[in-house]
Amino acid sequence: MIYSDRQKKLAEALRCARVDALLVTYLPNIMYLCGFTGSSGALLVPAERGRSWLFTDGRYTQQAADEVHAAGVVIGQRPALIEACKRVQRARIKALGFESEHLPFASARLLSQELRSKVRLKPLAGLVEQLRLIKDADELQRIRASARLAAGLLDRALQQIRPGISEATIAGEMEFQARGLGAEKMSFDTIVAAGPRSALPHGRASSHPIPAAGFIILDWGVILAGYCSDMTRTVHVGPVSATHRSMYQAVREAQSASIEAVRPGAEVGEVDHAGREVLKKAGYASYFTHSTGHGVGIEIHEAPRLAKGQRQKLAPGMVVTIEPGIYIPDEGGVRIEDMVLVTESGHEVLTSIPKDLITL
Amino acid sequence: MIYSDRQKKLAEALRCARVDALLVTYLPNIMYLCGFTGSSGALLVPAERGRSWLFTDGRYTQQAADEVHAAGVVIGQRPALIEACKRVQRARIKALGFESEHLPFASARLLSQELRSKVRLKPLAGLVEQLRLIKDADELQRIRASARLAAGLLDRALQQIRPGISEATIAGEMEFQARGLGAEKMSFDTIVAAGPRSALPHGRASSHPIPAAGFIILDWGVILAGYCSDMTRTVHVGPVSATHRSMYQAVREAQSASIEAVRPGAEVGEVDHAGREVLKKAGYASYFTHSTGHGVGIEIHEAPRLAKGQRQKLAPGMVVTIEPGIYIPDEGGVRIEDMVLVTESGHEVLTSIPKDLITL
Repeated sequence: MIYSDRQKKLAEALRCARVDALLVTYLPNIMYLCGFTGSSGALLVPAERGRSWLFTDGRYTQQAADEVHAAGVVIGQRPALIEACKRVQRARIKALGFESEHLPFASARLLSQELRSKVRLKPLAGLVEQLRLIKDADELQRIRASARLAAGLLDRALQQIRPGISEATIAGEMEFQARGLGAEKMSFDTIVAAGPRSALPHGRASSHPIPAAGFIILDWGVILAGYCSDMTRTVHVGPVSATHRSMYQAVREAQSASIEAVRPGAEVGEVDHAGREVLKKAGYASYFTHSTGHGVGIEIHEAPRLAKGQRQKLAPGMVVTIEPGIYIPDEGGVRIEDMVLVTESGHEVLTSIPKDLITL
Repeated sequence: MIYSDRQKKLAEALRCARVDALLVTYLPNIMYLCGFTGSSGALLVPAERGRSWLFTDGRYTQQAADEVHAAGVVIGQRPALIEACKRVQRARIKALGFESEHLPFASARLLSQELRSKVRLKPLAGLVEQLRLIKDADELQRIRASARLAAGLLDRALQQIRPGISEATIAGEMEFQARGLGAEKMSFDTIVAAGPRSALPHGRASSHPIPAAGFIILDWGVILAGYCSDMTRTVHVGPVSATHRSMYQAVREAQSASIEAVRPGAEVGEVDHAGREVLKKAGYASYFTHSTGHGVGIEIHEAPRLAKGQRQKLAPGMVVTIEPGIYIPDEGGVRIEDMVLVTESGHEVLTSIPKDLITL
């Protein structure tokens, strides 16, 4: 039901786009529409009646049989794109949409050679992504579980943190625990950035040791049942200077302000603005060098992007990160990140970890 | 020197392809040509004199300054592709190649809109990949180090394996150890496939427990200094039946036969054939359902593909995997995989792990 509901919504969009079918080639979109998680395949979804077809190869015979819903499966001898073209011709499709933001130029040309002039090819963008913006009940359940599992990893990290231990060891402990709890893998390269390295917004865990004093940014997430989580906490080792306390407090208040701004109908730019204003008043505006957040789901970075001036409106069912941060070269950095669900009445924070500054 | 040498070779290929420059957008190719490992950027490489330019954004200011060699860096306000177009126009480039197998259709269209009719766009395929086929001294050093680190992980896994322990726990131990030894991450999702699951060629480590008796396929690798390793061993728990012994022996002999066939000038199809013949004589031909191997380097799967009937010739400096396997549903599977360097006189196996059947 889940998958056929999603395909039904897509079919509606295809009729608006005046095509008879969409050839879906972007793997996260294929997973969303039929459940297939293999690394090679293409899905043909019709705009009107008729069934969808997934084309893949012999490596995925068993996996496709286990995973694919609401679509027939064709295990082809030739590449999925070519097999799909055969079906397009047999189904007498006149206008075929393809995912122009994902399909490589050479593959689009291959399609047009295979289909010759009999089929009109139409480049389409963001149709499935538009559906994926609003998470359905099944997705929310998976995202909640993914966020819960990830939230449980911080304690293990805190137990490990002490001066001299490498950032990578701490990341390794979190990843090992994630495995033990059933995560498929981490949703991105775990960030453990300590001391001066906390001033790098993307300080992937390195062989650098934890210093005697300073901030440590931990930014991590897992993939569970195909869905990503993403969260950040900043902790402190050694005595906390007045500057560090002020930095932390400013980011914490900025994050609260942005979270408070999350509600249906709010523009994503307003959410960004709310936190940015707090940091501006505290004198840290110029150190907040990235955007406030992003959607999260099958992919770790999805629409919407919560950035300055963006006009997209939030709607119930969106899941976004709220993650302001400030990064002062040589001094250090602070970022606090939660996953937030947009609800009918406002929002719900999905990350259940306290935000008082932890000092170790 | 390394990077300018690579760019010089590319420039030669660009002159043959009759373009004035190539816009490189595929991240592994960008890393190969200038060292940049950020997740967003584009590199413009001229065919004649003049310097190359890397276009990226403010998130990567520090990283680009640290990493980029043999190219100027432009930290742009607008997307890398647009910034690159500005430079193309300023440099009066008449014919610009782009990577047609990687650049999405929509991005190619954006290029053509930005450059209008003043620049002739030429879709090119595989130019950088062709260079990457032959590993240079710097690459071989990194690949050797990556293979060495990965090889050291098996002992830890063997210490963990006992009936009842989950596949994921064993994978987790290997990954944790890899972290501790300085690996950036695993080069792909670690495969630990035990008992009947060993009959799945791609049995990612799951929550299934190790059974009392049967094969366990372990297939793993790491990324170290940007380069991948990839290796497989199959071990056995419990009493080994005559069938299992015969399966293991057949794969081991097939693998040896394929390795022996690796030498400059040999067609990749011959290498595949050598192992396949051994399995055929042993009566297992129909259970060897994939190709014999693939190139490995910056990416875990690169050219050449060592498959049935392929005519590409091996040459010194290529690094390939040799990984025949047989998979018998319900019974189990065996795969043995080494990384092999093609040398001037033949080959050198880069994976230093014994291949006698280990029983636990």
